[in-house]
Amino acid sequence: MNRLTVELGERSYPILIGQHLLADASNLAPYIRGRQVMVVSNETVAPLYLQKLLAGLAGCELERVDHLELPDGEAFKNLDTLNRIFDALLERRHNRSTTLIALGGGVVGDMTGFAAASYQRGVDFIQVPTTLLSQVDSSVGGKTGVNHPLGKNMIGAFYQPRLVLADMDSLSTLPPREFSAGVAEVIKYGLICDSEFFGWLEANMGRLMARDPEALAFAVERSCRDKAEVVAADERESGRRAILNFGHTFGHAIEAVQGYGQWLHGEAVAAGMVMAAELSRLRGDIPVALVDRIRQLLAAAELPVSAPEAMTVDEFLDAMAVDKKVIDGRLRLILLRELGEAAIVSDCSRDLISEALLRCGAV
Amino acid sequence: MNRLTVELGERSYPILIGQHLLADASNLAPYIRGRQVMVVSNETVAPLYLQKLLAGLAGCELERVDHLELPDGEAFKNLDTLNRIFDALLERRHNRSTTLIALGGGVVGDMTGFAAASYQRGVDFIQVPTTLLSQVDSSVGGKTGVNHPLGKNMIGAFYQPRLVLADMDSLSTLPPREFSAGVAEVIKYGLICDSEFFGWLEANMGRLMARDPEALAFAVERSCRDKAEVVAADERESGRRAILNFGHTFGHAIEAVQGYGQWLHGEAVAAGMVMAAELSRLRGDIPVALVDRIRQLLAAAELPVSAPEAMTVDEFLDAMAVDKKVIDGRLRLILLRELGEAAIVSDCSRDLISEALLRCGAV
Repeated sequence: MNRLTVELGERSYPILIGQHLLADASNLAPYIRGRQVMVVSNETVAPLYLQKLLAGLAGCELERVDHLELPDGEAFKNLDTLNRIFDALLERRHNRSTTLIALGGGVVGDMTGFAAASYQRGVDFIQVPTTLLSQVDSSVGGKTGVNHPLGKNMIGAFYQPRLVLADMDSLSTLPPREFSAGVAEVIKYGLICDSEFFGWLEANMGRLMARDPEALAFAVERSCRDKAEVVAADERESGRRAILNFGHTFGHAIEAVQGYGQWLHGEAVAAGMVMAAELSRLRGDIPVALVDRIRQLLAAAELPVSAPEAMTVDEFLDAMAVDKKVIDGRLRLILLRELGEAAIVSDCSRDLISEALLRCGAV
Repeated sequence: MNRLTVELGERSYPILIGQHLLADASNLAPYIRGRQVMVVSNETVAPLYLQKLLAGLAGCELERVDHLELPDGEAFKNLDTLNRIFDALLERRHNRSTTLIALGGGVVGDMTGFAAASYQRGVDFIQVPTTLLSQVDSSVGGKTGVNHPLGKNMIGAFYQPRLVLADMDSLSTLPPREFSAGVAEVIKYGLICDSEFFGWLEANMGRLMARDPEALAFAVERSCRDKAEVVAADERESGRRAILNFGHTFGHAIEAVQGYGQWLHGEAVAAGMVMAAELSRLRGDIPVALVDRIRQLLAAAELPVSAPEAMTVDEFLDAMAVDKKVIDGRLRLILLRELGEAAIVSDCSRDLISEALLRCGAV
């Protein structure tokens, strides 16, 4: 088992990465302060891993362990579903010293984290991410929240877990599309801050796609470490942390226009990264050969590398105007300076963005 | 104008207290960082003070100033109304550098503060409390949130404003019951941490009830100062800050059983403080003469000093069991050690609590 600490002063917490971690109480017990636990999962993940986790919790000397299964999918990541968590907590009389455990992917983690941030103004929170995407993305950074009909992740909080438990076993049941979507974020870390890791991914994408547990553990740990370094320097996303949104402004536009749930988040980010890379090339910052390498690596991970069919440039531009990255009317984008180095840019003309979009299949 | 700073490190903020503050841009402008503002008020307060505030904002060089009127009352302090704030922000494309201004009482302040805490994971927030209760209570402490059908303030966040503007002018239109409800919290500060102030209140209750502006400004400033001292020592309510809940555990039970909106919060707290004082006396901590003085001062402020008619002891005890002050099954109460000194007590027997309730009119 590997152990990585996300350094955030008094809010620091460990990420445990390895195999067979779920059912071992010694991994969980030190991080549960009260005597009550509520496990929040969804109808897909619970049948696979809930009993295993409950077996682990049985060794933790708790007064009560409740669990709640939410419907599965981004479409349910909203205030109504969030309220179901509050209903359950209040009906079962959970107090301020309760611990919420999120068992599932990013949607379960984001909602449970926001519920923990908001329930009685903040209770403890443990994350057990069961998808590759959530292991390498939402494990680090403390972003929690829900969607609003007018925008993704528009309602939420920065809230740190007390522990993240990333069990490689849970990746074995992941559908291929979801697995690939996770690999998109893994590739992102190589692009924005870790060229050596990008090289490793080019050399090892075969092992990764075959879900070799050792390759997976390495990729998850390296991704979390890369992200943790960026986040530690900028917990509340006022500056450098924005580079983590590489590909996301375009990706959110795809998700918003296609409707949440049509494209997976990681798929949208994959196409978005190609767009951002293409725009970087048009500005003369990176060579065309690097854009080709990026397309090739994403394609090897079975990810989309161009815009959804029939999505127009105007649909992109319009959707991007309400994105969180807009500061006082000026569109900020994350672009590449070179492989392994991203930067925030706010002087892109509408025309140049349009051209990059056209070159990536927008119409 | 008096200026008081709530010391919370990098989250410190000033409270400005005085007359004619609303329409002066120089009070507001230094605290607005972006170019967008959303004023959230309610249908009762907006007709009285919104134009005045907008006049002040007109001098602040903003790109856009929007406003939203919510329905008035505790009954609307819920997730649905909160969502109306998010709707308005997103429809009008407010970004992460927007500032939310709460113009109204505690309900507007709590909801707007939680909206600011949650919108895009946190935007700036200014409070313009227009009731005595909100000026002396929610101005300090950063508590924001909404109610849940199963409990008051069960969903929320600790979130500090950048500025609080307490304009004594706005107290002139306050209905008598609401004014008295505010005086209840003022009296609370005297009881829990400021015996000198309690003496001042006994001597000056006549001026205060006549809404003498100088007496009001003194009482608001002293209350905020008292509360700020307690909060500064314990921002997230892990210890000493709990004394601010003096009277509140009983008060919340009254509100929950009567239905929110029947008794005003301050009225419930007034009766709750008598119950807590009575319990302190039964434990032998304070003399009966002090309980009498407390009853007299509250009565002089036209506040209730006993339980609602026909409310039973069991209704109290049942409602108190889901209160936030319950840690791992043990009921913690805030009681008086002497005038001006409160303490957290967790060894009260059910019988003693019942007796105190019976002596305060519960049946």
